[in-house]
Amino acid sequence: MKVLIVHAHPEPQSFTASMQCHAVETLQAHGHEVMVSDLYAMNWNPVASATDFGVRKNSDYLVYALEQRENVAAGAIAPDIRTELDKLLVCDLIIFSFPLFWCSVPAIMKGWLDRVLVSGKVYGGQRFYDRGGMRGKRALLAYTCGGRDFMFDAHGVHGEMDLMLRHMLRGTLGYAGFDVLPSFVAYHVPYITPGEREAMLGRYGDYLTKLDQLKPLSFPSLDDFDAEMAPRVRDPQVTEQN
Amino acid sequence: MKVLIVHAHPEPQSFTASMQCHAVETLQAHGHEVMVSDLYAMNWNPVASATDFGVRKNSDYLVYALEQRENVAAGAIAPDIRTELDKLLVCDLIIFSFPLFWCSVPAIMKGWLDRVLVSGKVYGGQRFYDRGGMRGKRALLAYTCGGRDFMFDAHGVHGEMDLMLRHMLRGTLGYAGFDVLPSFVAYHVPYITPGEREAMLGRYGDYLTKLDQLKPLSFPSLDDFDAEMAPRVRDPQVTEQN
Repeated sequence: MKVLIVHAHPEPQSFTASMQCHAVETLQAHGHEVMVSDLYAMNWNPVASATDFGVRKNSDYLVYALEQRENVAAGAIAPDIRTELDKLLVCDLIIFSFPLFWCSVPAIMKGWLDRVLVSGKVYGGQRFYDRGGMRGKRALLAYTCGGRDFMFDAHGVHGEMDLMLRHMLRGTLGYAGFDVLPSFVAYHVPYITPGEREAMLGRYGDYLTKLDQLKPLSFPSLDDFDAEMAPRVRDPQVTEQN
Repeated sequence: MKVLIVHAHPEPQSFTASMQCHAVETLQAHGHEVMVSDLYAMNWNPVASATDFGVRKNSDYLVYALEQRENVAAGAIAPDIRTELDKLLVCDLIIFSFPLFWCSVPAIMKGWLDRVLVSGKVYGGQRFYDRGGMRGKRALLAYTCGGRDFMFDAHGVHGEMDLMLRHMLRGTLGYAGFDVLPSFVAYHVPYITPGEREAMLGRYGDYLTKLDQLKPLSFPSLDDFDAEMAPRVRDPQVTEQN
């Protein structure tokens, strides 16, 4: 299996960075090939802009998604995007490794999504969810946060964590066609002991070696919608998915 | 009323930019003072890093939130953050104006949230939701997207839009203590006629002049949780909030 780890943390000694290193070691020890995009170390540019494009379909008015399609096809997309896109297209599994910033990924990682998940290859037209361009690949989030687990359950003060991350799990990864595996969440990280951190790394390693046992999250099938994206059957289950 | 509009779009001629301009004109015409942070025009740096801090509580290991608190107190936070923070602290209403990128804000705007919503002033300890630092201020999202409105209702292919935006509405703005008003969403923007765009601008102007009639979204009250954030009463309603 080819694995791409996209990692972002401003502190190279962080526990999130330890998780990323542990993932590399564990996956390599199990015979997988691992690529790492360490966004802070790469000084990744997160800002989607006209400078991403060597050619322009419309030089007077920027429609970012249209120029992505045009420039990928013409081989004229910015080299930093092309490098990441090549890693994405060959990987079987992508892992996003990050600390939760405002119930989402840090901006530098959001900019990886904005710039690398290009229209045309990843999605476009009616190719999304089970018709998305990333069909056949798996994706997962592995993140750290300061809060405790019970604060993010259905009765917790913040409600379910997967609902907070819905824009990532469903709106981004599910939409792109990935099989999205249940996330690995390291809770309460700033406040736990070194021993508890070791135990958490152990659990992360176990999780990574047993991915085949995990059931992907459930998202809509486009078979249930017509060409105008109107529901074919008003199935109340649809609203209960992630 | 003092209004801060934080705007981000890579195309200055975009419809999103027209909405931003229309908001400025409409709000000024009604006697409000308007500040605009146009993040692309400002070449805003979205990457939270050690360079944001003039002094360090711990120079060997970066805990971003701790250094935010330390540096704001010491007057040593990066000048670009300080400028935005000053606008935030004086405003009565903040408007986020953006095109939806992957069911969230563009990375450049995510980096405004990561860097400007500083620990200590905006949140910290048990100051969040109805005890958050932004209590008494209002916030709203005004955004454009390519999809149609029915694709983002409860039976639509993507489910409810407010659930996709939960990380912003609840996890960020609600958490910080803002009264979060229902969003203004401009659907299907790339595909509509100039006349339809004009009508949409008109609706946006109406919306902005009638904000007092809008009921803020509902979030938990910390009164319902104990000091450990365990629910005082297991009230199933909590899970039904946004």
